[in-house]
Amino acid sequence: DYPRKNAEILSGQYGINVLLIGAALMLAIAHHGPSVKEEHLLSFITCLMILQLIWMMWYILVRDRQKNLQAEKDVHATTCWIRGGLTLLALLSLIMDAFRIGYYVGYQSCVSAVLGVYPVIHATHTIAQVSLQPHFNFNKVIIFQFGVIHAVFTNLLLWCNGVMSEAEHFLNNHKRRLSALGYGNLSIVHSEPHCNCTTSACSMFSNSLYYLYPFNIEYHIFVSAMLFVMWKNIGRTIDLSSNQKRPGTKTHGLILGPILGLVALASTIGVLVVYIIHVEESVQTRQSAISMFYCYGIVMLVFMCSAGASGLLIYRANHMPMDTTKNPSRQLDTELLFGSSVGSWLMSWCSVVAVLGSNSSPPYRWTNLIYALLLVLEKYVQNLFIIESLYRQWEDGEREDPELPAAPEIFSVTSSLAPPYNGIINRAYDTPDRACVTMENEQEENGQVYRCPRKPSEVPLPVGKKVAERPSVKRQILKNITVFLIMCNISLWILPAFGCRPQYDNGLEQETFGFSIWTTVLNFAVPMNLFYRMHSVASLFEVFRRV
Amino acid sequence: DYPRKNAEILSGQYGINVLLIGAALMLAIAHHGPSVKEEHLLSFITCLMILQLIWMMWYILVRDRQKNLQAEKDVHATTCWIRGGLTLLALLSLIMDAFRIGYYVGYQSCVSAVLGVYPVIHATHTIAQVSLQPHFNFNKVIIFQFGVIHAVFTNLLLWCNGVMSEAEHFLNNHKRRLSALGYGNLSIVHSEPHCNCTTSACSMFSNSLYYLYPFNIEYHIFVSAMLFVMWKNIGRTIDLSSNQKRPGTKTHGLILGPILGLVALASTIGVLVVYIIHVEESVQTRQSAISMFYCYGIVMLVFMCSAGASGLLIYRANHMPMDTTKNPSRQLDTELLFGSSVGSWLMSWCSVVAVLGSNSSPPYRWTNLIYALLLVLEKYVQNLFIIESLYRQWEDGEREDPELPAAPEIFSVTSSLAPPYNGIINRAYDTPDRACVTMENEQEENGQVYRCPRKPSEVPLPVGKKVAERPSVKRQILKNITVFLIMCNISLWILPAFGCRPQYDNGLEQETFGFSIWTTVLNFAVPMNLFYRMHSVASLFEVFRRV
Repeated sequence: DYPRKNAEILSGQYGINVLLIGAALMLAIAHHGPSVKEEHLLSFITCLMILQLIWMMWYILVRDRQKNLQAEKDVHATTCWIRGGLTLLALLSLIMDAFRIGYYVGYQSCVSAVLGVYPVIHATHTIAQVSLQPHFNFNKVIIFQFGVIHAVFTNLLLWCNGVMSEAEHFLNNHKRRLSALGYGNLSIVHSEPHCNCTTSACSMFSNSLYYLYPFNIEYHIFVSAMLFVMWKNIGRTIDLSSNQKRPGTKTHGLILGPILGLVALASTIGVLVVYIIHVEESVQTRQSAISMFYCYGIVMLVFMCSAGASGLLIYRANHMPMDTTKNPSRQLDTELLFGSSVGSWLMSWCSVVAVLGSNSSPPYRWTNLIYALLLVLEKYVQNLFIIESLYRQWEDGEREDPELPAAPEIFSVTSSLAPPYNGIINRAYDTPDRACVTMENEQEENGQVYRCPRKPSEVPLPVGKKVAERPSVKRQILKNITVFLIMCNISLWILPAFGCRPQYDNGLEQETFGFSIWTTVLNFAVPMNLFYRMHSVASLFEVFRRV
Repeated sequence: DYPRKNAEILSGQYGINVLLIGAALMLAIAHHGPSVKEEHLLSFITCLMILQLIWMMWYILVRDRQKNLQAEKDVHATTCWIRGGLTLLALLSLIMDAFRIGYYVGYQSCVSAVLGVYPVIHATHTIAQVSLQPHFNFNKVIIFQFGVIHAVFTNLLLWCNGVMSEAEHFLNNHKRRLSALGYGNLSIVHSEPHCNCTTSACSMFSNSLYYLYPFNIEYHIFVSAMLFVMWKNIGRTIDLSSNQKRPGTKTHGLILGPILGLVALASTIGVLVVYIIHVEESVQTRQSAISMFYCYGIVMLVFMCSAGASGLLIYRANHMPMDTTKNPSRQLDTELLFGSSVGSWLMSWCSVVAVLGSNSSPPYRWTNLIYALLLVLEKYVQNLFIIESLYRQWEDGEREDPELPAAPEIFSVTSSLAPPYNGIINRAYDTPDRACVTMENEQEENGQVYRCPRKPSEVPLPVGKKVAERPSVKRQILKNITVFLIMCNISLWILPAFGCRPQYDNGLEQETFGFSIWTTVLNFAVPMNLFYRMHSVASLFEVFRRV
């Protein structure tokens, strides 16, 4: 009876404020003042996680009591491959927690107990979240909405905390490197405990932690995106026809894309190793390492731009209507792609300004300019390609499969009751129902749930000829492009995630913007860029399945 | 034929990149380095403005040639009172340009010519924008979309520039004040030209400028919000039934709200004057001025919270369906309210952290805490109130008016053809057509424009009894609340806009967060807060008209 819109605003504002309290604590910690310490932030996060655990238990108890609730899962938020990826990331997070506990045990005598409680709670939280989350149903109770938004922002806060720790670690490394090269004395803030480690594995634990950070960070941002979609869907009726599972995507004709992608991936790992070794040595090798990085980057980006552009050209040659049904998950995807590009674009434009305004002229000055401009162009083209792919209506090619029943039988299927026929109901069937679906959306907004009766007689039968006309060559090209782009995006994620960040090392931007402004920009832009790469891989995978 | 979604992404990405180039230049200027100067930024903005002027001229020329285009104005973007406010702000911006030109004439011999060209172009731009903007029609040509988004981001960049200049001026003042009070030596960056002024009015011009900045800043953010709504509407069909003008809102029974509001406004001006005089004097008066500000703020906020909460209680007592028709302008309003609250919330939570973590204990320590918490609560309640009011379906009270024709004649009116009957078509009439409107929305997404036939026979006749049951007392209370909130928001806009910013002066947060982090937070949060106040006044005014 409480209007849905209000419940959304009420819970959304609560969530934002939780995040902002965390942000305020982080800012205070960043100052390294005497009053606010990391323990305070960790206790706050631990409280939030405990609250979430209590809420989840309460939810499970309530649900078990009213078993009659139809188990209607959120199809937009949970597809099987997303769940697989998430479980993997969660496992790596658990390893990280184990390391943290080990580290705490070693320094037990002189560090705060919070450092020991936090990883234990975090591990419990991770396990509970990954195992329980698929069992959540739609539920219009406002406490459910608060619980979900609490979970979203707890994860977002954990993400922020991960990003901050990672950035600080990287910055300290960078300062140490600068001092070693003789670039003046920058004060490094030591966060080492004041006693000796009682076990022999402490330094191993603390060093390994930083290789696991990237995965932990991605885990939290993914969970919060999924939960956010779930939150947006609360009180909405789900179009069950999208519940169908598509048969496995065919991999026929996939040659060039994967090969080129693997070449890109292999060369990336090579570049990463060479870069990390060379950048620590003399000024000479440092400059050559940076030059090498930019040349490699330009080649990669040129290939990616041409791949994306040819994909767009294929779309222009092949007129098809856009799919405009309401899908909060897809809209969120679009907005996240767009939003997370901003960080990287800002970084690129800063580089352009720095190159054009700089007085010094290192050997990589102009390659840096070209690299920055290509980076802008590549994201521009790739976003267009991904978004157009996601919004396209694809004729389903699955119809040809011999083992599936003939077309007319489709109409006897009500998707929710006849699982073996799932996946047959095709887009051609959906279209005439659109008005009905939209009316449903309208009703949902008012909080009512009602289902349109299917009217099979009005549905035009799928025409057999269309199947023959299916532009399969174009599709194969699109698949190859998508696979290639996936590999390239993974490559461009690996580089900064594992420490290859020439924006810190090249010195050009630092000269124009000053150390503090430039590191602030990077602390904001690099995590966004990492998220962009991860997210575009996920979106491209979705595109790959749809093509 | 180019899909609407793609055109949106294509032009949106272009706009974001234009803004980011500007942001990169601003960051470089903030470093006060030798390579990038303010002239570079101003030339860039001037180029953007000239581009926009060329586009506007081109548009007018093209439109005049194809006069047959139906003049279908964007009703969401332009209502008469918005236009009035905008014209006023534009006039103040023009005065500012005149002052800038005068300043340039005085220092002509030693400053860059860009400082003279910029205000001239800016004045032309302002005049052209305000006078031409209402003549824009919907146009699906992609170049129109690019033009509008270019205008949106040019204005946003001008806003950023204004905010930056204002923040820098304020920061310099603050540093000067701190030095005068003996708080160490902070380096002040002087931006004075290196020659003497040839006219006598230079210092008058440069001092007056800062009183006009707040209006210039609001002007640009308003224009970009309006243009953004226009951009979002491109390719959509407008529901003409919302084109109707409502008869003037009745002011009967408006007593308590305006009176209390005026008291608030008057006391605000008193507080502002006392604060600005006292804060410059000794440490003692400074502390008492800050204490006074917090006490005043607490009283204001308690009243505002109770007003908003009683509004929400009235809504809870009075069940009415929510209006869920698609309205991009209203959705943008909601998002802007929500988004711009974030800045102020962050500031409040930082204050809370600072108060709790601080070691020093000035007299205003705990009032600061209460003030910060009330600020969070007040925005929380006010946002809920405004958003619920905007999404409510109001029964129209205008039906009773004796000079209007009787109810049955309504149905013979087609809203677009019979202007004298505009405003009669009521919500009860709209509801059954909702499904049709929604289908229209659906069609629009595909780029098609088609209009549902009205089916008067299916429409339930408005029942006479309902009019008698109309809760007019509740409405009068709501109106009083709205007027009171409008006045209070204006008061809370005036204080920071004209220099009353205790967050800079109280020293508590600066101790916990450090000077640089805290001024960064304030430079981000204060303009957002100013925008929030301005925007909530506009939204509340809309609420006032609807109640």
